[in-house]
Amino acid sequence: MKMLAAALSLAAGLGAARADEGMWTFNNFPSQKVEQQYGFRPTPAWLDQVRLASARLAQGCSASFVSSQGLVLTNHHCAHVCIEQLSTGQRDYVKSGFYARTQAEEPKCPALEVNQLVEITDVTARLNAATAGKEGAAYGEAQRAEMARVEKECQTSDRLRCEVVTLYQGGVYDLYKYKRYQDVRLAFAPEFAIAFFGGDPDNFMFPRYDLDVAFLRVYEDGQPARMEHFFRWSERGAKEGDLTFVSGNPGGTSRQLTVAQLEYARDVGLPDALLRLAELRGRLAEYRHRGAEQARHSNADLFYVENSYKALRGRLEALQDKTFFASKVAAEGKLRADLAKDPARAQRYLPAFDAIARAQADLKQLRRPLNQLERGLAFSGDLFRLARQLVRGAEERPKPNGQRLREFRDSALPAVTQALFSPAPIYPEFEKFQLAFSLEKLREALGADDPAVKKVLGQASPEELAERLVNGTKLADVGYRRKLWEGGQAAVAKAAEDDAMIALALRVDPDARAVRKRYEDGVEAVTKRNAELIAKARFETEGTNTYPDATFTPRLSYGTVKGYQENGREVRPLTTLGGAFERATGREPYALPQSWLDARARLDLATPFDMATTNDIIGGNSGSPVVDRDARVVGLVFDGNIQSLGGDYGFDPAQNRAVAVHGAAILEALAKVYRADRLVQELRSSAAR
Amino acid sequence: MKMLAAALSLAAGLGAARADEGMWTFNNFPSQKVEQQYGFRPTPAWLDQVRLASARLAQGCSASFVSSQGLVLTNHHCAHVCIEQLSTGQRDYVKSGFYARTQAEEPKCPALEVNQLVEITDVTARLNAATAGKEGAAYGEAQRAEMARVEKECQTSDRLRCEVVTLYQGGVYDLYKYKRYQDVRLAFAPEFAIAFFGGDPDNFMFPRYDLDVAFLRVYEDGQPARMEHFFRWSERGAKEGDLTFVSGNPGGTSRQLTVAQLEYARDVGLPDALLRLAELRGRLAEYRHRGAEQARHSNADLFYVENSYKALRGRLEALQDKTFFASKVAAEGKLRADLAKDPARAQRYLPAFDAIARAQADLKQLRRPLNQLERGLAFSGDLFRLARQLVRGAEERPKPNGQRLREFRDSALPAVTQALFSPAPIYPEFEKFQLAFSLEKLREALGADDPAVKKVLGQASPEELAERLVNGTKLADVGYRRKLWEGGQAAVAKAAEDDAMIALALRVDPDARAVRKRYEDGVEAVTKRNAELIAKARFETEGTNTYPDATFTPRLSYGTVKGYQENGREVRPLTTLGGAFERATGREPYALPQSWLDARARLDLATPFDMATTNDIIGGNSGSPVVDRDARVVGLVFDGNIQSLGGDYGFDPAQNRAVAVHGAAILEALAKVYRADRLVQELRSSAAR
Repeated sequence: MKMLAAALSLAAGLGAARADEGMWTFNNFPSQKVEQQYGFRPTPAWLDQVRLASARLAQGCSASFVSSQGLVLTNHHCAHVCIEQLSTGQRDYVKSGFYARTQAEEPKCPALEVNQLVEITDVTARLNAATAGKEGAAYGEAQRAEMARVEKECQTSDRLRCEVVTLYQGGVYDLYKYKRYQDVRLAFAPEFAIAFFGGDPDNFMFPRYDLDVAFLRVYEDGQPARMEHFFRWSERGAKEGDLTFVSGNPGGTSRQLTVAQLEYARDVGLPDALLRLAELRGRLAEYRHRGAEQARHSNADLFYVENSYKALRGRLEALQDKTFFASKVAAEGKLRADLAKDPARAQRYLPAFDAIARAQADLKQLRRPLNQLERGLAFSGDLFRLARQLVRGAEERPKPNGQRLREFRDSALPAVTQALFSPAPIYPEFEKFQLAFSLEKLREALGADDPAVKKVLGQASPEELAERLVNGTKLADVGYRRKLWEGGQAAVAKAAEDDAMIALALRVDPDARAVRKRYEDGVEAVTKRNAELIAKARFETEGTNTYPDATFTPRLSYGTVKGYQENGREVRPLTTLGGAFERATGREPYALPQSWLDARARLDLATPFDMATTNDIIGGNSGSPVVDRDARVVGLVFDGNIQSLGGDYGFDPAQNRAVAVHGAAILEALAKVYRADRLVQELRSSAAR
Repeated sequence: MKMLAAALSLAAGLGAARADEGMWTFNNFPSQKVEQQYGFRPTPAWLDQVRLASARLAQGCSASFVSSQGLVLTNHHCAHVCIEQLSTGQRDYVKSGFYARTQAEEPKCPALEVNQLVEITDVTARLNAATAGKEGAAYGEAQRAEMARVEKECQTSDRLRCEVVTLYQGGVYDLYKYKRYQDVRLAFAPEFAIAFFGGDPDNFMFPRYDLDVAFLRVYEDGQPARMEHFFRWSERGAKEGDLTFVSGNPGGTSRQLTVAQLEYARDVGLPDALLRLAELRGRLAEYRHRGAEQARHSNADLFYVENSYKALRGRLEALQDKTFFASKVAAEGKLRADLAKDPARAQRYLPAFDAIARAQADLKQLRRPLNQLERGLAFSGDLFRLARQLVRGAEERPKPNGQRLREFRDSALPAVTQALFSPAPIYPEFEKFQLAFSLEKLREALGADDPAVKKVLGQASPEELAERLVNGTKLADVGYRRKLWEGGQAAVAKAAEDDAMIALALRVDPDARAVRKRYEDGVEAVTKRNAELIAKARFETEGTNTYPDATFTPRLSYGTVKGYQENGREVRPLTTLGGAFERATGREPYALPQSWLDARARLDLATPFDMATTNDIIGGNSGSPVVDRDARVVGLVFDGNIQSLGGDYGFDPAQNRAVAVHGAAILEALAKVYRADRLVQELRSSAAR
């Protein structure tokens, strides 16, 4: 994939881990198992160093610190939003690439935030005490309130982000305290053409030849942040068979879903999401024909949509595989049969499966209004999102912290205001395009006669309304947004009189909140409560020597550089720079940038380019460093092979592969293609120590 | 629906018919059952009259003769292709509607053909004798050869079309002899805005307010054809509770598929088709923004794609309904359990289920190259289709009739040449758009490294190749096509030297034919043979008092004008002209045309507009007349409600409804909105007799 956090979030947990399987938490890493298998035992100090040198991009990617000067390594596709936002019609950095010759020339990314996990605290007992004896809506409310309290207590500064993380479906609750870096600047990005060489056709494929790399830098008080912990660069590099660790933030897995949940994903959730993505993809692909500027404005969206489409399609295919699905059915059947043998356990746990199945049936009924009105499918684009944040922020902030919608808890407000006051450009024509599409889909999903649809559209056509909304709002102005945020409910109510987008956000809010409440009380709380029961039953049977489902929090996986078999052919684990020149056709997406054509003679074409490893990863791992036993960088995860997409539901060590840029390729390209001597020196001086 | 023949064809049969269920053949109509239920017994003479007054549009719709002068009643959406092809940038009949003030002004439709079923002959014994004792590829070949012989013998003139029709999954083979009318002209069409009022949002919905009507006329030797059999118009009209018959050509149902086939449709076939349609829909919707002409050229395609999308989505939802699917599983389980009780029957019939399941697994493997290369998904547009017809025609025609690909059998050649020499306009920009999309999907479906993909694309990008192919062919010229057809293989080989599209068609043909052969031998023949066995087993158990699955051949269904319950609300079976004015918003797709706004005061707003009936119909029934017990026209089927979409797999009399334009609305609009006095008089004079 582009290992971005996925477009569709499912709940999730797991059974006995197979070879190399697992996205392990840093405080429960199976060091002994690794030692048995690979002869190397990560120590607590080693684990701390790796955790603290790792980072998360709050927007959905992973990253790492690679110098004492706050230099951050991540993927081009993770920094894409910044590269695009810094571009204009005159200078398109997506196309041309970007390199700041001096540190002073590193421009600020309007919308990026880097997080570093500094502390983990177990708060399971507190959470359990708060929800003891509660069910349904009361359970959910009590849990949300206690989480808000825990986070609030932790959140002593704007420079911290505190999150209660639910692990093992509620078997464990940990408080994660992150340090936030909000001043993030761009140091280097190659051309899109080499970052994403092969484009969508080669996405999720291997062999690959992509330099999906970007360097950012975090600043504090206007100066490069001084890092105590960072990764040094390996001079030696990784070769076939080497032990590799991937430290990153897998966004979500679904390895412990019940069969009813898997059926819902297969029959309802994934088809819904895919059909929407497919249609939007078609619109975006043709929107580019409106002109070069329109293409530039919509590039990142098209990329995201194509990537999500391919990723979800891969997941759907995994679930449509009869053998795989039958194995899930059999595993659940075995667990249920085991439980049935003990009357006490049967009574305690077995009803949980049916409760979850009923919640899925409710979700099927509820999903359309939920997705359209509350999750915003009906109102695509930046402007409505901003309007809703202002409208809801005004209503929520006066409430006691524990009673607010979770995204307006005190602990979350810094992230809200960062997004709200971002100076990232907003393109009116593209906003209209997105809104017209999404309003049309709203009418399609709920029907032209639905009262909420009538409330939104009135007599207008979707295109007409989109035009009117975008022309009739001042939300593109950051100062205006700031005024409304600070002015609270009175300011928002006043603005609604002559701002069409604010008025719309206000008008749909009661319906949106109502369906959210029905979902949270009737589906989410029920599913959570019962998944927790099933997880407990599993623990009783299988023990706790497992990893929890992914939750877009820091995890560590281990594996080796290794090829695989595909349709009877052997796929080798390493490609070379020379291979890229062989694959190039001169036409997109197989056109190498001019800088590479010019540098060809200078390059060592035998340098490893991309590599496949057995590390267990998933969307959200994009930008994860691949490090060796000395905790030195040997690569940068940017993708998984197509076989890895089923990894959402289960890990297959024979075929699932993480795909990374090899560390040597990064240095070779920086030095010989981009002459980025400043960065090469910074990385090498780290490495030398 | 727009009850067009569906985009996805599945094989299909059935069990014991429920109230009003069934798409009955004219030679096995349950007259006694109808009499018991409704007190009216259709006689053989009545059935002959209805059959001979009914018609089929060879392109995938139904129709009827409604005057002695060859006047043909069908849907606007069935005549759309003609209305669009007769339009130009200067006069857009899709938008403005069309009315030929005099018969001499009726223009010829370039691509329409009307068929009338004049004779049915049972050829079961001949077919069975030809295939006796054969299996697999040999079975399929023998059957194709015998069908070709039977059709060839029947096909004594270009004015006939002879088809062997497989009924009851091969329980019965009938030879259908049709009279062909190839000179078809346009007499009347209303504006698209009223023909499809409510557009895609209201498609497959009820209540409705659509005048989805067009009048064509068939000519013989340059004169209006003199019809011995035609329907008279009912002056009285239909009201709630009236008995109604629908005579039409349902395209295909799948009511006897095995569970393995239904799973394939649910998990593979329908998702594949829907995802393609969704993406193409997005492209087409945005392509309209290129300009008014581009919108006009692509209108019919967008309409077809949106209609197919909604229809297939409805089918998928029917299969995703757990209760419904479980009923299919239970029915098959019961049949298998019954068979298992008798060792002889078990041995004879039970393996058929597994054989079909294996064929589905093979199809899953084969479907991508099959759909892309052979079924043409990779090469959308008219030009490649023409190139392939020329290339294959040249290769096939010299072969003995029985050894040809079925679409080049002598009996099929008149239809091939009609399409090949059609003067319908071809729009280069739209061709490029379609080809670029489909070539991109080819690369996506098979992968950039697939040898067939490399053979097609070489170093070119899909867009570049599309450009080159369309610019590099003369196939838009009818004379050139005629020369190539007549020149045969030598002419085609010569043309390939400088015609890029012919060259491409030649280049991909070996791969396309190879995968077709694998499909026909390994999947189609196996499925056919074993479905026939299962059908026989069913007949032994359930008797023959049933109807066969639909096959786009003439069928008759019976029912009544009747409403239904939807989400606890009662839906009344009739709407009125006045309702259209209430629903209108002035914006597409709810904008009434100016002609209607102008005529409002003249109209009797209480006139029934559209109606719902319990007749069992499916895609292909578009344009079917609804007639009363006197065989007089009381309506015109143009759609089914959303609940009817599951009708592909089973009929639910509580909710499945056919949706028709009421006969009174047609007369009222012709007279008062369009002042089409000539046609009104022609219809009324028929009615008076």
